[in-house]
Formats: sequence, C-alpha cells, structure tokens
Amino acid sequence: MQNNPHITLITPDAPVSADTHGGRTKCLQRLVRLELPVPRTVGLSFDAVHKIARGVMPDMALLLSPFDTGELLCVRPSSEDPDWGGPGAILNIGMNDARYLELSDRLGQEAAASLYARFVHSYSVLVARLDPDVFDEIGMEGQASLSAALAAYEDETDEIFPQDPAVQLGEVLRSMARAWEGTSARLLRQGKGAPADAGLGLVVQSMALGFGAGECGSGVLQLVDGQTGLMQLTGRYLSQSQGRDALDGGVEALFLERDPRGPSLEDLAPDAFEALIGHATLMRAKLREEMQVEFVIEDGRVHLLDGVRVARTPRAAVRIAVRLAEDGIITRQEALMRVPPSALNELLHKQVDRTRPRDLVGRGVAASPGAATGRIVFSAAEAQASAARGEACVLVRRETSPEDVRGMHAANAVLTERGGMTSHAAVIGRGIGLPCVVGATEMRFQMRKQMLTTRDGRVFKAGDVITVDGTHGEVLAGEVAMLEATLDDAFQTLLGWADAERDIGIRANADTPADAKAAKMFLAQGIGLCRTEHMFFDDDRLTVMREMIFADNSEDRRAALERLLPVQRADFTELFCTMAGLPVCIRLLDPPLHEFLPSDHAGHRALAEALNLPLSNVTRRVEAMEEYNPMLGMRGVRLGITVPEIYDMQARAIFEAAILAGEAGAPIVPEIMIPLVSAKREVELVKMRIDMVAAAVRSETNASFDYKLGVMVETPRAALRAHDIAETASFLSFGTNDLTQMTYGLSRDDAGRFMSAYVNQGVFPEDPFHTLDVDGVGELLILGAKRGRKTRPDLVLSMCGEHGGNPESIAFCRAAGFDYVSCSPFRVPVARLAAAQLAIIDKLE
Amino acid sequence: MQNNPHITLITPDAPVSADTHGGRTKCLQRLVRLELPVPRTVGLSFDAVHKIARGVMPDMALLLSPFDTGELLCVRPSSEDPDWGGPGAILNIGMNDARYLELSDRLGQEAAASLYARFVHSYSVLVARLDPDVFDEIGMEGQASLSAALAAYEDETDEIFPQDPAVQLGEVLRSMARAWEGTSARLLRQGKGAPADAGLGLVVQSMALGFGAGECGSGVLQLVDGQTGLMQLTGRYLSQSQGRDALDGGVEALFLERDPRGPSLEDLAPDAFEALIGHATLMRAKLREEMQVEFVIEDGRVHLLDGVRVARTPRAAVRIAVRLAEDGIITRQEALMRVPPSALNELLHKQVDRTRPRDLVGRGVAASPGAATGRIVFSAAEAQASAARGEACVLVRRETSPEDVRGMHAANAVLTERGGMTSHAAVIGRGIGLPCVVGATEMRFQMRKQMLTTRDGRVFKAGDVITVDGTHGEVLAGEVAMLEATLDDAFQTLLGWADAERDIGIRANADTPADAKAAKMFLAQGIGLCRTEHMFFDDDRLTVMREMIFADNSEDRRAALERLLPVQRADFTELFCTMAGLPVCIRLLDPPLHEFLPSDHAGHRALAEALNLPLSNVTRRVEAMEEYNPMLGMRGVRLGITVPEIYDMQARAIFEAAILAGEAGAPIVPEIMIPLVSAKREVELVKMRIDMVAAAVRSETNASFDYKLGVMVETPRAALRAHDIAETASFLSFGTNDLTQMTYGLSRDDAGRFMSAYVNQGVFPEDPFHTLDVDGVGELLILGAKRGRKTRPDLVLSMCGEHGGNPESIAFCRAAGFDYVSCSPFRVPVARLAAAQLAIIDKLE
Repeated sequence: MQNNPHITLITPDAPVSADTHGGRTKCLQRLVRLELPVPRTVGLSFDAVHKIARGVMPDMALLLSPFDTGELLCVRPSSEDPDWGGPGAILNIGMNDARYLELSDRLGQEAAASLYARFVHSYSVLVARLDPDVFDEIGMEGQASLSAALAAYEDETDEIFPQDPAVQLGEVLRSMARAWEGTSARLLRQGKGAPADAGLGLVVQSMALGFGAGECGSGVLQLVDGQTGLMQLTGRYLSQSQGRDALDGGVEALFLERDPRGPSLEDLAPDAFEALIGHATLMRAKLREEMQVEFVIEDGRVHLLDGVRVARTPRAAVRIAVRLAEDGIITRQEALMRVPPSALNELLHKQVDRTRPRDLVGRGVAASPGAATGRIVFSAAEAQASAARGEACVLVRRETSPEDVRGMHAANAVLTERGGMTSHAAVIGRGIGLPCVVGATEMRFQMRKQMLTTRDGRVFKAGDVITVDGTHGEVLAGEVAMLEATLDDAFQTLLGWADAERDIGIRANADTPADAKAAKMFLAQGIGLCRTEHMFFDDDRLTVMREMIFADNSEDRRAALERLLPVQRADFTELFCTMAGLPVCIRLLDPPLHEFLPSDHAGHRALAEALNLPLSNVTRRVEAMEEYNPMLGMRGVRLGITVPEIYDMQARAIFEAAILAGEAGAPIVPEIMIPLVSAKREVELVKMRIDMVAAAVRSETNASFDYKLGVMVETPRAALRAHDIAETASFLSFGTNDLTQMTYGLSRDDAGRFMSAYVNQGVFPEDPFHTLDVDGVGELLILGAKRGRKTRPDLVLSMCGEHGGNPESIAFCRAAGFDYVSCSPFRVPVARLAAAQLAIIDKLE
Repeated sequence: MQNNPHITLITPDAPVSADTHGGRTKCLQRLVRLELPVPRTVGLSFDAVHKIARGVMPDMALLLSPFDTGELLCVRPSSEDPDWGGPGAILNIGMNDARYLELSDRLGQEAAASLYARFVHSYSVLVARLDPDVFDEIGMEGQASLSAALAAYEDETDEIFPQDPAVQLGEVLRSMARAWEGTSARLLRQGKGAPADAGLGLVVQSMALGFGAGECGSGVLQLVDGQTGLMQLTGRYLSQSQGRDALDGGVEALFLERDPRGPSLEDLAPDAFEALIGHATLMRAKLREEMQVEFVIEDGRVHLLDGVRVARTPRAAVRIAVRLAEDGIITRQEALMRVPPSALNELLHKQVDRTRPRDLVGRGVAASPGAATGRIVFSAAEAQASAARGEACVLVRRETSPEDVRGMHAANAVLTERGGMTSHAAVIGRGIGLPCVVGATEMRFQMRKQMLTTRDGRVFKAGDVITVDGTHGEVLAGEVAMLEATLDDAFQTLLGWADAERDIGIRANADTPADAKAAKMFLAQGIGLCRTEHMFFDDDRLTVMREMIFADNSEDRRAALERLLPVQRADFTELFCTMAGLPVCIRLLDPPLHEFLPSDHAGHRALAEALNLPLSNVTRRVEAMEEYNPMLGMRGVRLGITVPEIYDMQARAIFEAAILAGEAGAPIVPEIMIPLVSAKREVELVKMRIDMVAAAVRSETNASFDYKLGVMVETPRAALRAHDIAETASFLSFGTNDLTQMTYGLSRDDAGRFMSAYVNQGVFPEDPFHTLDVDGVGELLILGAKRGRKTRPDLVLSMCGEHGGNPESIAFCRAAGFDYVSCSPFRVPVARLAAAQLAIIDKLE
C-alpha cells in the first residue's frame, strides 16, 4: 500500500509526503515520526478523492484494508485550508450492531447507544442526505434515540442501516468528495481566493474513544495565545467527550493547567497532563512552529489526533516568530519569512474588535487601514474647529481635494462618497495613517443638508457619532470596541533583523514634520518624496499664494513669493532637522495653480475682498484658469518654466534651510526633484536657474553646500528618453501613480467608477493603481532604468508613490537594480520586511 | 584664378559650382554654358565674403584682376534668398573722372554725368554711409547733380571721391559683407527662418549699359504668369534705364509683346525682342524651369544679366510643374518633386487677397486654412438658424465642444477665444474644411453680452460682419476681397501622377456623408477613421441618447438604443454607399457619456421635462457623472465594457448597413475599431460580443458578410502590448493625438496656454500635436508596429488623427512599414503628393 500513489499509510518510516495529501497529512506524518501517540492513520491524495467523487475508484474501501477489520474510524479533510468548503464535519466509520454490543460491554449500554445514535445521525444527514429535522427531533442520547434513529433511517431509505464498515467507508468518502466538488463549495472557495484546482485530501484515522471507563475525554491544547502571541498554555478538556466538544460554549470544560477559577486536567489526571505538555513541547521544537494539539484521553492514556498550526492574529504572528527564533528553534531568516508583510499594516493602527457586536451602516473601499470613532463633520473647517475643541471627528466629504488636507490632519477618520484606492483621500489617508473609507456609494451624501442617509433609510447628521473601519471598509454606527495598536519589542526586533537582511533602501514619502517624525519612528532611511504643495494650504500662506497667482507681472509675483520664502525655509529646516542628516528629496511645486484658488462663489467673494479686486475680475480669472484635464495640464515643470519665480523661491528656501540645518547639526545634501518632465530641455532650463540661485545663496551667505538635482519620471516620454534626461539629472525617481495614469490613459480619480467591475470581469487582473502593472508600466520602468544608467552608470534610481510599499513592487525594483523605494511612513515597516524576505529568498536560491 | 577656392570666374568650361556661391552664381554659370550673352562674371564664395567682412582678405581687388582694367562693374548678392537681409542694392564699380570723360564721348555729357552722379550717390550712402538726406537733395540728373555730389562727398569725408576702381571694389565688397553680418540683417534672417550660419555670396559682373546711343535700356521678362501659372509673356522694358527701373511703378515702361494698350519692345526693337524670346525659351528648356530674365539692351544688343526662378503662387507652382512635364522638359517625377505638398492646402480653400487692403482687428492661431465672411453668431443654434435662412455666419465661441459640431457644419467660419492647433474647433475645422481661427486671446469674448471687443476697443456684436482668415490667423472687419479656390486640371493631373508613384495608402477621416463626399472627391482610398459620436448630436437623436444614458437598467437602455439603431444604420448605409466599395473603418463610441448631457441649468431643466424626471434628479445625476479628467476617464472601450449594449447596437447597425449597401451595389467588409484600449482582455471581451451580434444578424437575415475588428492604439500601454493585442485584432491604427497626450502627460485642450511659450523657448522643438514627436511617441509607434507584426505578420498598420496628413508623419509611417495613413479629407491631396515625393526620393537614392 505504501506504493499506492493515492494513499499513504502514515508510519515512522514512510517518507513525509508532499502536500498532495494536504497539510494535515504531512503534519500527522511528522507526529508519527516523532513517535508521538497518534492513532493509526492514512492520507488519501487529492487525486484519489477526485476519482472517488467521479465514481472511477469504487473499491476504495479495499485500498484501506488495514482499517476494515472491525475498528472504529474517523475521516476528516486534510486540505490546506479547512474553510475552503466541502465536508465540514469529521465522520466516523465502523459502528454497527455488532460493535454496539461490544461497546455496551465496555462502556455501558447508554453510552454505547449514544455513540451509535450520534453515528446514525451524522451518517443519515451528511452521507445519506436524509431530512435533518427528522433526526434532530429524535436526538442522540441513549437507547430510545438509537432505536428511533435506526427506524427513521429504514423508513426514509427502505433499507436497514448499513452494517458493513467497508460500505460505510465508501459512502463517507464518496459523500465528502462530492461535497468538495459541489457548486456551493466551489463558490465558497472562489470567494475565499482558493486556486480553482484546489483539491481535497482526506485523512482516515483509527478512532481513540473519549468515552468509557477510567479517565476518558477529549480536548485541545496550545502553548501560546493565538490573540497575543504570548507564551500561555491555552485550551480546554472535557471528560467523556469526543472531537472538539470541549470547545463548545455550552459545556463546562476543564482548564488544562491548575487554575483558581475551577477544576483542571492537571488536577484530574496529572500524568496525562504532563505527557501532553511534553508532547506539545516536543512538537514545538521539532515541528518548529506553535501547534494546536487535538487529543483524546482513553482510560488515562493520551492519543494525539491531530496537530495544526496555531491560528494567530498578525501581532501574535510577529511575537511567535521572534520567540521561536530567540529560542533557537528557527533562524532569524525563517522568522522573517514567517510573517506576511501585509500583516504589519494592522499592527500600526487601532482596529475594530470584530469579535464584538457592531452596527454596520455602510460599506466602501478600505482605503487606509485602522479605525476611529468621532462626531460627523462635513467640512475641513469644522474638522479643524472640532480638533481645536479636543473633540474627535470624522470628516465626511463627497471627495477630498488639497483644500481639505488641513482638515484631514485634524480629523480622526475620513469617509467619502467617491473615489478608489488611489483617490486623494485614500492617498493622503494612508500617508498620514488616517483611517479612511472611500467610495461609500451605497450611502447618500447630502452635503448641503449635512446629512448622510444609509441604504435602509437611517439618517446621520453633523455631530452624530460614527466609527470608520478603514481596514475593512466599513462604516459603523456609534462607538465600537477597539483593539489598541502595538509597536512592541517583538515588532522592533523583527524589523531590526529585516534591516540586517535587506539590500534595497526604504525611504518614506513625507510632506510635513509630522510625516517626517513618523518616517523617523519607522526607521525610514530618508525622505524619498516631499511634496511641497501641502505647505501652501495653511490659511495665511494660501492668501499670499493666491496673491502670487493673481500677480500681473514678474515683480509683483516675486514680492508675494518673497513673503512665502521664510515660511517655506522654516518648513524645510524643520524637515531637515527632524531627519537629522538622512537624505531628503524635495519635489518642486507640482499641482496646477488653480488648485490653490477657491472653487465656489463665497470663496471668490472672500478672495476678491482679500486682494481688493472686483469680484467679476476674480471670477473671470478663476474661470480662465480652469482646465479640461488638470492632470494633463499646466502643472509640474511646465509651471516651473512658465512661472520660473516659484521654483527660484523654492530652491532658495531649500538651500537656506540646508545651511541652517547644517548649523543646527543636521548637515544635509538636499535632493531637488523636478516633476512631470517630458523632455530633456525642461530639465536643463530648470537646472540653469537653480544653479544660479545656488550661486547667489553661496555668495550671499559665504556658506558652502551641495545639492543633487533629479527628475520624477511620471510621463511615458520621460521613461523613453531617460538617456537624454540622465545627462542633466543625477537621479530618477519613478512616480508610478502618474506613470500608470498616463500609460493606461486612465485617471485614478475617475477610475473608481469602473475599476471594480473591470477587475471582477478580469479585464485587468488587478487595479494597476494598487498593484504595479509589470507588463506595461513595468516595461517603461525597466526601459527608463536601463537607458538612464547607460548614460550615467551611477544614476540613482528609485520608485516613489503608492506602489512603493507593495512587496511585489519592491521585488520588481530590486530586480531592476533600483537603489530604493519610497512609500507612506506607515508602509515603511511593511516595505522593510518585504525587502528582507526578497533578499532571503535570493540567498536561499 | 580658377583654382582660387574663394572666387570662380564664370566661363563655359568652369565646373558648375555647388551652392557655396549662392544659387545665382550657379544659374549664371549655366547661362554662360548655354552660350547666352552674359557679361563677364565671377562669383565670390560665402567664405570669401566672411573673410572680407572680418578684414582678413584685404587684397580681394587683386584677386578680381580680370576686372580691374577699366571696366564698369556691378556687384550683387547671390545668396539663396535675397530677402535674407544684408545688402539689398546692386552696387556699381569702376566709375571715375576718366571713365566719365570717355562715356561723355559715347553717350553725351548729360547721360554720362547722370550715370556718374548715380554712382556717387549710391556709393556715398550705401558704402561710405554718408547722410542720405544730403545726397537725395542733390538729385542724380545731369552735370549739376554730379558736381554737387562730388563736392558733398569731399565735404563729408575730407577726401576726394575714390578714383581707383580697385579701392571702390574693395569698399563695396566690404560694405556688403558687413551689412550681411550686421545685427538687423541677422534678426531679419532669424525672423525668416534662415539657418543661423547662412552665408552671403556675391556676384561681380561686367556692366552692360542701358544708356547711350542706339536702342539702350533694361527690362525683365518671363514666359509664364507667376500668379496663375499660365503661359503668358510677362514683363516690362524701359529705354535708357538700368537695373530694375522698368518695374518701377512711377515710369511708363513698354510692354514686351505687341499690345493694343501701348508701345512694346517688339515694335521698338523686333530683333532684340526675338533674341530675348529665343534666350528665354532656351533657358526654360535647358534650365528646366520657368525663369525670370533680367536683361539690358545696349545699342540694340541683348545682354542677360541674370536669370532667377520665377516667383509663383502655389496654384502657379502646380500649373508650371505640370506644364513643364507635359512639354517633356522635366519628368513627371520631377514635376511631383517641385510642388511643396503644403502648397496644395491653399488651393483647396478661398483665400483672402492679401494684395488688397484689409482691416485687421485681431489675431489668433491659424487653425484651419481658408477664409470666409459672415455675420457673427454666438451659439451653434444661431448658426443653424442662420444657415436655414441662407445667411453666411461666423460662429464665435469661447471654445467649441461636441455639442457645437452641428453649428460648425452650419457656419462658414469659426472663431474661438481659447485653444491651439489641436483644440476641438481646430480639428473639426480642418476635418470639414471650415476656416478657423482659435486662441484669439487678444480679443475679449463676452459671451453673455454677445460682444467681441478688440484690443483697441472696437466692439463687434451679433449680426456684425467679419472675415476669418484661417490661413493666416487673422480676424478682419467686414468683407474683404477673396481669391477663389481651385481644383483645376493641373491639380488633378499632378495628383494622378502622385498616385502612380506612391507606395503607402491614403485614407480620409470622415464622420458624416459630407466628409465622405469630400474624401471621395479628393480620391482618398477609403475612410480610415469614422468617429461615430457626432452622429448622436442631432437634436432628435440626442434626446434618445440621453434617455439611454439615464436608463436605470439594461432593458430600458436597450429600448432607447433600439430607437437609435435605425438612424445609426442609415448613417452607415449612406457612408458605405458614398464610398462605393472602398474600405470604411468605424470607431465605436468613444467620448464619455457626460459629453452628451447638457452642462447648464437651462439644459438640465429641459432634459428633466423631456425625460419626465424631477429636476433635482437630473442635476444630481449629471453632477455624479462629472469627471476630473474626462480624457482619462470612463470612455472608449471602458464604456463598451461597462455599458455593452451601446457597442452591441453599433455593431448591429454596421452589419445591417453592410448588407443594405451590398444590396445597393456597394459591397463592403466593414472595419470596426475599438478605441482607448489598454489591455488585450478588453479587445477579447468586445470581440466576443460583436461576434455574437454578427452571428445573430447573419441568422436573422440569412445574409453573409465579413468584417474586420481592430484597435485604435491611443495609450502607451496598447503600443507596448501590441503583441498581445494583435492576437485578437486584425489591424492597429495609431491615434497619435491621444497617444501624444498620454506620452507627454499633456492635454491638447490645455496645452494651448503654454505651448507657444514652450516652443519659443525651445523646450519642445515643435508642438508635438502638430508635428509627430518622433523621439517619444514615434518610438511607441515603432515598438507597437514591430511587436504587433511579430504576432501577426499581416497585421494592417495605420496612423489616423491629425498627424496623418503631415509629410513628416507620412515619411515616418512609410519607414515603419505602415499600410496607410488617414487624415482630414482636405489634407488628402497634400498627403497623396507627400507620399509620392517620399517614394520618388527612395527610388532616386
């Protein structure tokens, strides 16, 4: 039978099978090899189960002959993930009238009758598919139930209950295989993201009975707490029970360890307890993992039915991996490989405790993880007012724009009607670690009435309390129970190990001192992208900015910019000092100027008053600056060339700040990045002016400083002409958000309307704003990198923007020889771990 | 001297020099070789003139020794283009007291004195740079003037008038060279687009005197009319005159040929006349070009001073080239090479007669050639009303949108405040041959007041008459004199020859039956791009379209589309029948649906009434459909996949129309093109549905038909993934407008604001929407073509969109192995000629 490819008898000398029989088979094989007391077991391969389901392997019972000689058996699925559908229950085999009589002698008639009745019940309902109501009514306790159940079976099928264990086994296997192939199981698997060809493996095991004379019972044990990851003996035991009865909330199960709260297995059966602890400890050391042990005690003797990897929260995953490594059971590299990078995300934010009740009132895109509760406000100004009063608030907008950024900083969470993963609210939210749900289209947003109406007609007004769960894309009424964020020792230890392994730099995108502090906290190796536009949205600065925009000539423009210079210089000085000598890459002003102008009538009136201009003049000029496609308009370097005074001012602020930071003990070589370049000449023109500003500042201050000038590659043309551009640029940073927009001809703000339909229909395998499009955008990255390095072999290459923190993007950038990636501060830990895993995989290969 | 690299003595056996001495030198050499009576001549190279200007060749007079023995000489510039600045005048050399005495004997004292006085005048003013007023007062007639002029020279310079011809020659050459190098000449050349290093060549010639005994005089003659190109002896002759005196408006010059209107050279000196005609005819035949002959008659003997290519209008250029070829003087290939393709543009439209007075009131971008006069209207509806009344009108808009297209068809010209060469108005204007000036920013457009105010405060209101000159970008008050368009025999002949030479197909972009008729008239080989969106802007269709957009479910949507089907089918049937069997490529609906919705309050109200919906509902839904960047939004194939019923209807209309056209004797294999593709799967999904529609139509009608499905490559990603896409597409047509937008990240609608500044500063060498960006967009074209053909060697490749008609783009497409280009119907003749020239150049090489 060892040679039967479909079936593996699990013995100490059988080779540990590949995963073809499912993870559980493999685990059982290991337990047997460790000479732990595991009942006799075979694993049926996926292939065998398929054949059974299709009826082409009718004699499977014969294949299992070592078991058909009068034992009680149980059959359970052994697939990767028990939640992938198919048979949920563990089914027993081998009970019949003869066995019943025999057990009656051993266990007493009532216990034996109950066992038989249970067996008839589950066989009738799950295998023979008879009406569950009939059997539920009958019950499963004692002789009366047994007689009724046997009669009912005969009634319903016109046959007596099958007595031949081989027939039972055949039917059970067949029913399990069919259930796996059924439509509902398929849909369930699809919903859970299982591979389309995921197979069902089965395990057939001799049954250890938790019933009978002496200490009998069953239970579950693990050495660690799956919620916290702390070493903590966890589990329950129930005398005279079978399977997972001990975990049933309705029963009074025993503690395992001695416990003041009640009786324990340790008290009841100290030898069995000690043996169990020994087995579990051996399993941890030898299986090199925290395992949950399912056990049966039969007349005081311990049997291990199964061991499965302990289910764990992300935070427990980190603690367990670190502890296993610290205990010398696994290597640090293995510890790093065991934590999925995305799991770290949840650790950085408060989370809704989803085990507790919650009142779901709307759904949207889970745009920025974490959860927060607050009173509803409908404008950025109210959010700021709310923050000033020390009140938590949730900013509700149709969508957000740069004008809302200050309000977002003040809010505890954001909820928008429109947008997707890469809308303004989502990007800013992730950048500043603000929980955010966007595209909540099933709720009705009535901004003027300051009302939010749910699908079922409930109305929330300004001031009402809601909770935004940005991890799961849920809007909840009122307050809900939360789990605190953790940046514990294990987390720091793991990331420290990650830094020792990884070979690509990780920087953070940071626009504000708060961002920079977060970047520093998460040990980013510098700032890869500092967007300067947000610096101009402070109330007092905005007015000057607008004056500058409305200036009629270069002189007036310079005068307004002159007033912005000190604040901009202060911004950069603070940033440089916060980063304490780490590199900072500053992107010159990028958005179209009209984004700084008010868009409504009231705003126009206020602006007219502030600038002392006729309202009609203001309105006309604002209108004249409108653009059809602002994304493709007068922004980035086009602005820098057309209104060069702005970049002059910014360059001066950067240089003066660098000098001040140097004096304050944070010496820096600032990196200046030009946005939206499409031609080499643009870079040359900007460089010429910035060089002049540098020369002027040097001669005015008599200070010396260096700086680097580079280009943000956001247009396909800049990537195609990277060899030209690299003649003037010392670094290229690929802005994959915009580059994806241009490559697809797809605005991230407008894509939300159809992107989910597109991904669901498989038009795009993934949202390219979420997962880097390796085939299209990726080719431009590779072309750009190659061409740029051909001109300048020491050209520094990087990726900034939303993709930067994704493990797949990091893998791509590593392979393409990039120097670093830059992502939101809150993505830095994820990126550090992902980068380490990639380096480890390379070393292992 | 023959070996002197700087100077060439022009003799019959001297080799015909390259253009280093200027085109005129070359021509004179040819005249000498033809043994025509040309005075002794040398040409000075550009290099020699530079050396003279810098004073490093002081002894040039010696180099010209064959002339310094007492002859009269004249010096004239021989550069490519006499308008490139520098010395305008022809200067004489060799006159002095001794020569004066000698000439007095021959010509009489007064005549000789006048000659000497002229000489002193021009030498003093142009070479010695003395005050012109002084010499103008003195005059140039007779002995009194001569004495006064010589005295004045001595007065001003404290030297007697230079008597040594060698000194005179040196000074003349030096002054001419310096004038060429002067700032104003440089600026002039720059303004005219001359190369920065354009050089001045000079010609030194023995002088033939048009004064003296016997029949003496000078004149100009050509065999052809430079305005019309018709064979017509043209020119004037004046006795006792020199240079181009005969052409001076103030004098009463003679006709050349016998003429009832007055005396003629033929009457006066029949032998000289006959000799001249003989010379001119010989020159035409041997120089293989229509030449203007400058001649002097000295005592009845003809001297040819110079021959230059006859200046000609575009229409004359065509006639002349065809006539020369028909006369066997040049080949048809040469005739084709002699007409600049862009010259044809002007022939297709009425033009302002710029020799007549005109009242310029504004300038803008010359967006669509031709000129038209009409009354001002400020809306598309008024334009249609005006057309219905049979009144010519000019549609004035801030900018145009698809809603204005019907109005544009009704208008005679369009004038917009905003936009550039590729704005909506410009593209549509060129497409339908409608004169159009856009971006007339220096005028103030007050749409609500229905007023147009010029810079100098003149006001034009609705109903006022203006003329739009789209060829020159001018707005003129009132009516102006016009030149009619011509599609004469010569034009047709030339293009017939072009078709015989060219090796790349030329199709037209045509949306309407009128466009298709134009395409047919200009002999396009089919329609390369039929945009279907314009078909839905008819008032009655638009309402149904809007109903469809507002439909709540697929059923209602289908019902509305059901009503659009017959009109769409009729559109296509007419198109197919017009094209009579030529291929037609139809692009499925492309623009975002919100373009079909009204954008103002009144429009919303009307729509609410028409659809019987609450106004608030309509307003809300219109707002909900707004997009940040419509260019990058829900349009093209994204629409086709999200609202598949639209493409279903269009495909059905196309197939049913193909059947009807076949029955009407215009069999066709329609080509269906999917817009804005970025992924292969998009094509597969659309193809699947269209195949289903085809199957349905086939089974319903029992008719058989074929069709081709292809992709419009407009996103960089589609070009990069062409190998994937070609698996499902049988043709790829590059839409270079959108592709340029995406590659640069630059909206053509918004680029107008800074494009001219960008081009002027040399940031972009050309407007990439006007001239194909070979380096960036071009690389994507080549990549796409190569990759597509790798998958499918017979993949049909083409370029549609505005670039398609440009000679440079056609050259690019030919080199890249494209099958055809498609352009506006009015660009088809240009494209046919340009393509022929490219093929000829290849054959010659």
